[in-house]
Amino acid sequence: MNDVYVIGVGMTQFGKHPDRDATDLGVEATLAAIRDAGIQPRQLEAAYCGHVFQGMAMGQRVLAQIGLAGIPLTNVENVCSSGAVAVREASLAIRAGEHDVVLALGTEHLTSRFRGALTPDPDDVEAAVGLTMPAVYALRARRYFEDYGVTREQLALVPVKNKRNAALNPFAHFKEPVTAEQVLESRPIAEPLNMLDCSPVTDGAAAAILAGEAAVRRLGAVGAIRLAASALRTGTVDAEPGPMTFEPITHATAQDAYERAGIGPEDVSLAEVHDCFSIAEALRVEGLGLFPRGEYLQSVERGEAEIGGRLPVNPSGGLLGKGHPLGATGVAQVVELVRQLRGEAGERQVEGAKVGLAHCRGGKAAGVEGAACTVQVLVR
Amino acid sequence: MNDVYVIGVGMTQFGKHPDRDATDLGVEATLAAIRDAGIQPRQLEAAYCGHVFQGMAMGQRVLAQIGLAGIPLTNVENVCSSGAVAVREASLAIRAGEHDVVLALGTEHLTSRFRGALTPDPDDVEAAVGLTMPAVYALRARRYFEDYGVTREQLALVPVKNKRNAALNPFAHFKEPVTAEQVLESRPIAEPLNMLDCSPVTDGAAAAILAGEAAVRRLGAVGAIRLAASALRTGTVDAEPGPMTFEPITHATAQDAYERAGIGPEDVSLAEVHDCFSIAEALRVEGLGLFPRGEYLQSVERGEAEIGGRLPVNPSGGLLGKGHPLGATGVAQVVELVRQLRGEAGERQVEGAKVGLAHCRGGKAAGVEGAACTVQVLVR
Repeated sequence: MNDVYVIGVGMTQFGKHPDRDATDLGVEATLAAIRDAGIQPRQLEAAYCGHVFQGMAMGQRVLAQIGLAGIPLTNVENVCSSGAVAVREASLAIRAGEHDVVLALGTEHLTSRFRGALTPDPDDVEAAVGLTMPAVYALRARRYFEDYGVTREQLALVPVKNKRNAALNPFAHFKEPVTAEQVLESRPIAEPLNMLDCSPVTDGAAAAILAGEAAVRRLGAVGAIRLAASALRTGTVDAEPGPMTFEPITHATAQDAYERAGIGPEDVSLAEVHDCFSIAEALRVEGLGLFPRGEYLQSVERGEAEIGGRLPVNPSGGLLGKGHPLGATGVAQVVELVRQLRGEAGERQVEGAKVGLAHCRGGKAAGVEGAACTVQVLVR
Repeated sequence: MNDVYVIGVGMTQFGKHPDRDATDLGVEATLAAIRDAGIQPRQLEAAYCGHVFQGMAMGQRVLAQIGLAGIPLTNVENVCSSGAVAVREASLAIRAGEHDVVLALGTEHLTSRFRGALTPDPDDVEAAVGLTMPAVYALRARRYFEDYGVTREQLALVPVKNKRNAALNPFAHFKEPVTAEQVLESRPIAEPLNMLDCSPVTDGAAAAILAGEAAVRRLGAVGAIRLAASALRTGTVDAEPGPMTFEPITHATAQDAYERAGIGPEDVSLAEVHDCFSIAEALRVEGLGLFPRGEYLQSVERGEAEIGGRLPVNPSGGLLGKGHPLGATGVAQVVELVRQLRGEAGERQVEGAKVGLAHCRGGKAAGVEGAACTVQVLVR
């Protein structure tokens, strides 16, 4: 098998960018990744672009601005896992022997395109009767509290941790730490979740350049990080949703990734997981097998998920702190893991990081419980 | 290299389907392809779904209806080449050794989503000042007439041929042949192009099931057709658009495909090409090297591109006759080629067909001349 490596990463400042668009952001992230890889733009042989709301030919518009049009590019969409599948498809093109050096880009100008989490899609019957995303996670939070005897106050420690990490990340949307009191007193969205339990509406782009073994040698790529697994699953149908406090799709996708990478959850040094809501982080890390079921919030309370803890979770700030420009999110997770595994994460550095895991879970679709889940494993 | 085969194909009736949606159409096409392949739904290991306007998680909605959610699925978008890239990405997943049996689906409920070719995208400056798709092809037609001394009357023979072929295709949007007089007297759209020179707004879905060599043997797939090449290129930037009557992107993509397949244009038995407008068929077959530059309309006049002619072009009816449900088009071309290469095309059968070529060219994007071009070669 042709091993695949990440040889360069880059991202824009995440945040509100009223004067920019997804093309412009995509160009900036791509050029940053090209510089980081130490290659010339013309050495890119193909590209994948993940986004959700940016319309036709998104990636082509980015390549045109760089003067790189001509190479194969495919736009991919898998809801909140769109950026992660851009990485996955890029890795498959390399493993197929089709290309050696491939760009995986994610870009989203969400502030100009998103109608808001509370406005359901016309064909989403559940959302139309009130089961919007915040409501889904609010129900899961309540059930989690009941099942495991934990409290609203303990849940507030997740946004506190992630926004504290974000304050150490120059590319993050949020620059200031928050206290548990601020989380608990922020505006209610769907009880028990408040504003600071929800990931924000963010613009941004992130890019990673992947290369096969031969290209890594040929380019003399320093600090290439191996993509040991890139697993994808579609959710189960609604008729078999599984328990509310555990995610079968996250669990199954993780098993695929661990098997491919030849590791187990005990080998993971740090994880970037899809904390679209505070409670989601608990569901994810437990589904991934990184923490025992029902015990994550106590682990957070004990500092185990901090940078410097037993298993740092979302050292980048995660979606809650770094922001969540949908298509960019999955690639930005890879950007963080690569920086951590290279030892270039500055104040956020996880000492001795050797194995990084990234997890995305795309939203819901009519008839599907969890439209798309990805787990990627990167190894130094 | 792991050779890739098409082991099953299916499609819906193309046309106006006011009472259906893209999910429903996608389910019908997928089930038809599964039946045609003689496999069980559960034998599909992964899927790609091409569409343009159907919103988030399109393919996931189809899988959920079939009860097949769980397997990896990626939605892909490359404008009018979206279905073709679903086929390409499916083939890469097989060549990578990631999956053995993969669905490539294209589906589009265009009548409910398309705002019309004359309504430009907000960020398409050229279209906003009048250079919409029909206008672009009208300019090309005029220039082609001037450069090569052919006439409007000769151009009318392209829709006549394609709609005659469509009348032999039970899945085609148009059921009736038209005369050259009817083409010339149809409503003007962008001079010299009239209504019957333009592909219609069509709903439909098409599906192909791809398999690697080992799976073909394991499944005992009868009549598997080899996908000998699946090439993709992004258009050049506007600053280097090339001559109006020749398509560098089509030419270059074809060279990629011929090289990969180990054939030349002289080996092609029949071609399905992207005749979004009558003049486009001439530009495509000449760019592909299937007919000499500037001579295609005379070739059509001599019957060379007819079923039974030297090199049948669009025996399915093409976009002009079969219809053009954007995401479905590239897969429907593969459906036609597989049926032809198996000798199952009924009244449309091209005798002795051995090598089929499919060509798509996706529309324009801001800054890009031709957003995405694909050329696929299938060999019996």
